[in-house]
Amino acid sequence: MIENLVIIGSGPAGHTAAIYAARAQLDPLMFEGLMAGGVAAGGQLTTTTHIENFPGFPEGILGLDLMMRMRQQSINAGTRVETKTVESVDLSKKPFEISVDGYKVLAKAVIIATGATAKRLGIVGEEQFWQKGISACAVCDGGLPVFRNKVLAVIGGGDTACEEALYLTRFASKVLLFVRRDVLRASKAMQEKVLKHAKVDVVWKTHVVEALGDKMLQKIKTRHADTGKELTVDIGGLFYAIGHRPNTEFLKGQIDVDEDGYIMTRPGTTQTNIKGVFACGDVQDKRYRQAVSAAGSGCMAALDADKYLKENE
Amino acid sequence: MIENLVIIGSGPAGHTAAIYAARAQLDPLMFEGLMAGGVAAGGQLTTTTHIENFPGFPEGILGLDLMMRMRQQSINAGTRVETKTVESVDLSKKPFEISVDGYKVLAKAVIIATGATAKRLGIVGEEQFWQKGISACAVCDGGLPVFRNKVLAVIGGGDTACEEALYLTRFASKVLLFVRRDVLRASKAMQEKVLKHAKVDVVWKTHVVEALGDKMLQKIKTRHADTGKELTVDIGGLFYAIGHRPNTEFLKGQIDVDEDGYIMTRPGTTQTNIKGVFACGDVQDKRYRQAVSAAGSGCMAALDADKYLKENE
Repeated sequence: MIENLVIIGSGPAGHTAAIYAARAQLDPLMFEGLMAGGVAAGGQLTTTTHIENFPGFPEGILGLDLMMRMRQQSINAGTRVETKTVESVDLSKKPFEISVDGYKVLAKAVIIATGATAKRLGIVGEEQFWQKGISACAVCDGGLPVFRNKVLAVIGGGDTACEEALYLTRFASKVLLFVRRDVLRASKAMQEKVLKHAKVDVVWKTHVVEALGDKMLQKIKTRHADTGKELTVDIGGLFYAIGHRPNTEFLKGQIDVDEDGYIMTRPGTTQTNIKGVFACGDVQDKRYRQAVSAAGSGCMAALDADKYLKENE
Repeated sequence: MIENLVIIGSGPAGHTAAIYAARAQLDPLMFEGLMAGGVAAGGQLTTTTHIENFPGFPEGILGLDLMMRMRQQSINAGTRVETKTVESVDLSKKPFEISVDGYKVLAKAVIIATGATAKRLGIVGEEQFWQKGISACAVCDGGLPVFRNKVLAVIGGGDTACEEALYLTRFASKVLLFVRRDVLRASKAMQEKVLKHAKVDVVWKTHVVEALGDKMLQKIKTRHADTGKELTVDIGGLFYAIGHRPNTEFLKGQIDVDEDGYIMTRPGTTQTNIKGVFACGDVQDKRYRQAVSAAGSGCMAALDADKYLKENE
């Protein structure tokens, strides 16, 4: 049996692709993953709490609930969802070969929606306070009441870290930007904005080494890179901005990716360099990385795949 | 007073932009329009009925309900919504000038999300049976139970008409494609597929002139372009695929548009040719045109505008 369409990944991009593909009678098969990329099926939203920026939910919705609703919608539309992680693919032959759980599935078209995973530091207390004061997305979480008028900390030295620090100045009483070295990797313009912003203090050559608190994060322990001197700092929130890792390892170099490992798509479409293989969501987006923009690109991938299948029938 | 950001339009793109912009503390002002482009505030979704493909609603949702929820969410986030239609803009000066209701609003950045309007024929019965058997979107509505295993009609001769006819073969017992002339404007490949598809009959040189029925559309009256001969044909649904008109008249040539009037954006972003002016949703998308892809681009526009404002503070 040759599948029409296999969808790999189960975040907003994967499920929106599945909803559209199933409604178009493509009879899609989704591999939602079993703790693939270190997160549960449903993707990064399952690691968040209350989401206020997904359109259609004026009172907000829990990330996990939103993903359970999307999953149900995919199934209602006719998607077959399997809770397995794809191990590898062979995109050099047609039909494409997808290896999962020791067997191979053949497919005429593939949508890759495996997302990206926020890098973590692995410091003491990180697991305990993840989403209880620690977040990997200032744009998603920065505006939550719990972070208002507090001293907030950002870790990182690149453009994203600077952007997130500036973003948080709207809510925070003060933003501390912890940088490991004595330079920022961010663009000159962004550096200047951060350095001259009255609400941002850059803390140079300093590692955050521990998260402390009761039920919620309350303090962090920092260590100076040269002197080793440790400080305990009261903090209302801690934002990681040390980058994301796109979940593309299973592709093992078979598809064009950029210097950071993100799948390259023809801008404005979901077409990869391999005809019949489409990518959507965070695995191909390091710029916007939002649930609704991922969902939008999932819709695009299904329509692109549908057109491809129709043209190659 | 100079506004940070004015959002023009109130469909999924406009409201998602508003939600993101308001949460980023940009204090956006939205002109949602008063029957702008011939449709109510909320855009094209307000002219549909049950929507099954917007992710997050496994049981589906009424188009109007979804838009009321998005509007409430924009307001909850802090957007000021005014029920007025923008008459014209002057994008040649900074701040930009937006004329509405006889006064001018100044803005540092503008998001254009005015959508597109499906062209109609204006035939007898069209108004009565709109969304009661007549639809302008096969991808949106074709899979609804009411259209299953029926004879469905498509009007148009371009790529979209051919694509929609093929799409409908999955649900219909037969698809009649009514073409005014004796040729299709569609690409050669698409023509071939339509002409050889067992379920599609192309009806050449024939106009659809009247929609008939009781509560729902049941028949159409057709007229041959040469002979004037009229026929009454039993039909389960009628799909217009005669194109859309992007709502860009109020821009009066101040921004780069393509040959069909759609605003041109840098692919993969919402940036128009004017710095500080962003476009999202159907007004810049003639390829995908779905609620969720519009919403995704609205999110992108807000993030692009936020970045622009931050860089030009």
